Amino acid sequence: MHVVITGAGGFLGNRLARALAERGRLRGAPITALTMADLSAPEPVAAPFPVRSRACGVAQRDQVDALLSDGAEVIFHLAAIVSGQAEAEFDLGMAVNLTGSLNLFQAARALGTCPVVVFTSSIAVYGGEAPDPITDTVLLNPQTSYGAQKAAAEMILTDMSRRGFIDGRGLRLPSITIRPGRPNRAASSFMSSIFREPLQGQEAVCPVPPDYVLWALSPRRCIENLIHGAELPGQAFGPNRCLALPGRSYTIGEMVEAMRRVAGEAPVRLIRWEVDPELMRIVADWRGRFAVEKALRLGFVRDESFEDNVRQFLSEELGRG
Amino acid sequence: MHVVITGAGGFLGNRLARALAERGRLRGAPITALTMADLSAPEPVAAPFPVRSRACGVAQRDQVDALLSDGAEVIFHLAAIVSGQAEAEFDLGMAVNLTGSLNLFQAARALGTCPVVVFTSSIAVYGGEAPDPITDTVLLNPQTSYGAQKAAAEMILTDMSRRGFIDGRGLRLPSITIRPGRPNRAASSFMSSIFREPLQGQEAVCPVPPDYVLWALSPRRCIENLIHGAELPGQAFGPNRCLALPGRSYTIGEMVEAMRRVAGEAPVRLIRWEVDPELMRIVADWRGRFAVEKALRLGFVRDESFEDNVRQFLSEELGRG
Repeated sequence: MHVVITGAGGFLGNRLARALAERGRLRGAPITALTMADLSAPEPVAAPFPVRSRACGVAQRDQVDALLSDGAEVIFHLAAIVSGQAEAEFDLGMAVNLTGSLNLFQAARALGTCPVVVFTSSIAVYGGEAPDPITDTVLLNPQTSYGAQKAAAEMILTDMSRRGFIDGRGLRLPSITIRPGRPNRAASSFMSSIFREPLQGQEAVCPVPPDYVLWALSPRRCIENLIHGAELPGQAFGPNRCLALPGRSYTIGEMVEAMRRVAGEAPVRLIRWEVDPELMRIVADWRGRFAVEKALRLGFVRDESFEDNVRQFLSEELGRG
Repeated sequence: MHVVITGAGGFLGNRLARALAERGRLRGAPITALTMADLSAPEPVAAPFPVRSRACGVAQRDQVDALLSDGAEVIFHLAAIVSGQAEAEFDLGMAVNLTGSLNLFQAARALGTCPVVVFTSSIAVYGGEAPDPITDTVLLNPQTSYGAQKAAAEMILTDMSRRGFIDGRGLRLPSITIRPGRPNRAASSFMSSIFREPLQGQEAVCPVPPDYVLWALSPRRCIENLIHGAELPGQAFGPNRCLALPGRSYTIGEMVEAMRRVAGEAPVRLIRWEVDPELMRIVADWRGRFAVEKALRLGFVRDESFEDNVRQFLSEELGRG
């Protein structure tokens, strides 16, 4: 079982690699090799099987072909230009998020072995005319270039799976919070930083009002879901290989209250509330209320409460009780 | 007002060119030039303005750039690989229906004038998990490569319009019947041939059972809708530039009855009923029932009855009263 992860230099890619190293198995077989790829060759994780690190720009088909030249049974395609940057640099977003994904699907097809391809899409595919709450059968009407590029790639993923070229699974990630590390150019970056920085004694700016609703999932449950997405038999997805992952709906205010219950007053006082109109323009239409029957039926999981996410961050990232 | 039509060698493209020649105006201005493009340079129509004919393979970006090198205020993008062929030749369908459409959108954007782009999508974008009937807010879940490629292009059309690069409008065509000419590789080809051939004294095979339901529109109303799609202000479409055009739901049996009422018993007896399992596999999931509130609200039109379509074919194509 050879597993490939693109975007493996990112937070989720690295965490996924670590989870695979810990499991040692996938789809009923021992993992015999893991290839971690990113634009710059990422730091390999420690694992009981060989871990290779590769530099690969997915926008270049020949680089993707080279990445898969040793074959692959399961490919996790996480490489992407995030929402804020795809909005600022349209052509770069098209090249990586759409052309790059198509390159990956076509290179996987060229293996001739119908490999499993787990594609990380996003709830940014929803918006516009889609009614509230989002259900499994409402239209994708993205209002960002990032969402449009993900939605376009989804269409081809499902079709290439229907044709038996690849065994694709498209998982629309909720806002993943609390992420460790530094803020990035994702418009959703604040959804982690307003907790992460205060929990470490630093000030953070919240660019949306407290009643902003988001659909959130913890890093731990996200990784469990990515692996579950690979484990499921392809036919379980039915005629649509793409679905919204479970999450929970919270207002930012409720999340801050949850942090207060877990960590007290001090971090809450470190949040400065300052609405950012440009950022609001991007995230205002992101949807926060979902009914994800299909994903729950297929066994994807969510958190119990945002308190859990705060505790998870404290223990896993800060090493506190 | 310079108008460009891709796929102008096809039936709808030619008919659209003739309709524009007859009108002489578009979007409140006189048409000063019309460029008709297809893989082979199409026969120019007679018009009160200069009509140029160009060979252009839309899968090649440089050819699309050359096509638009004189500028364009309105582009009708009809060039496509039809459903049956896109199913048989996946890579060709991807090259023309997806890459070709993106080439056209990007070349239109490169003009820097935000031209109107009318994109002919298809009801083949629906299927799979979409509930019945199809409404304006149900998901696109195509079950053919043709539909998937159109759906992917739609996502980028709406996004590039939101960004102000182009002024796109994506119109999902119903089954257009009764088309003149010869059968083609569209899986929907029979939807015309079972009327067209018998009305001219020839036998035709109906490959689906009489209770097969389709969403149909006459060529005349289709052309009216394409032009209306160009005439509307872009913002009238709201946050989703793509919609299903009006049509009417009929069973094949009802359509045959309509032909009987207009043209008598003789043509009906020329239909041979012989279900084709391979074709049924493609068309079985195409949807026949729609609620197209948005399109009707925006002033798009449909036929009164299929009898009208039969009379239209007899008078316009066969020159019979």
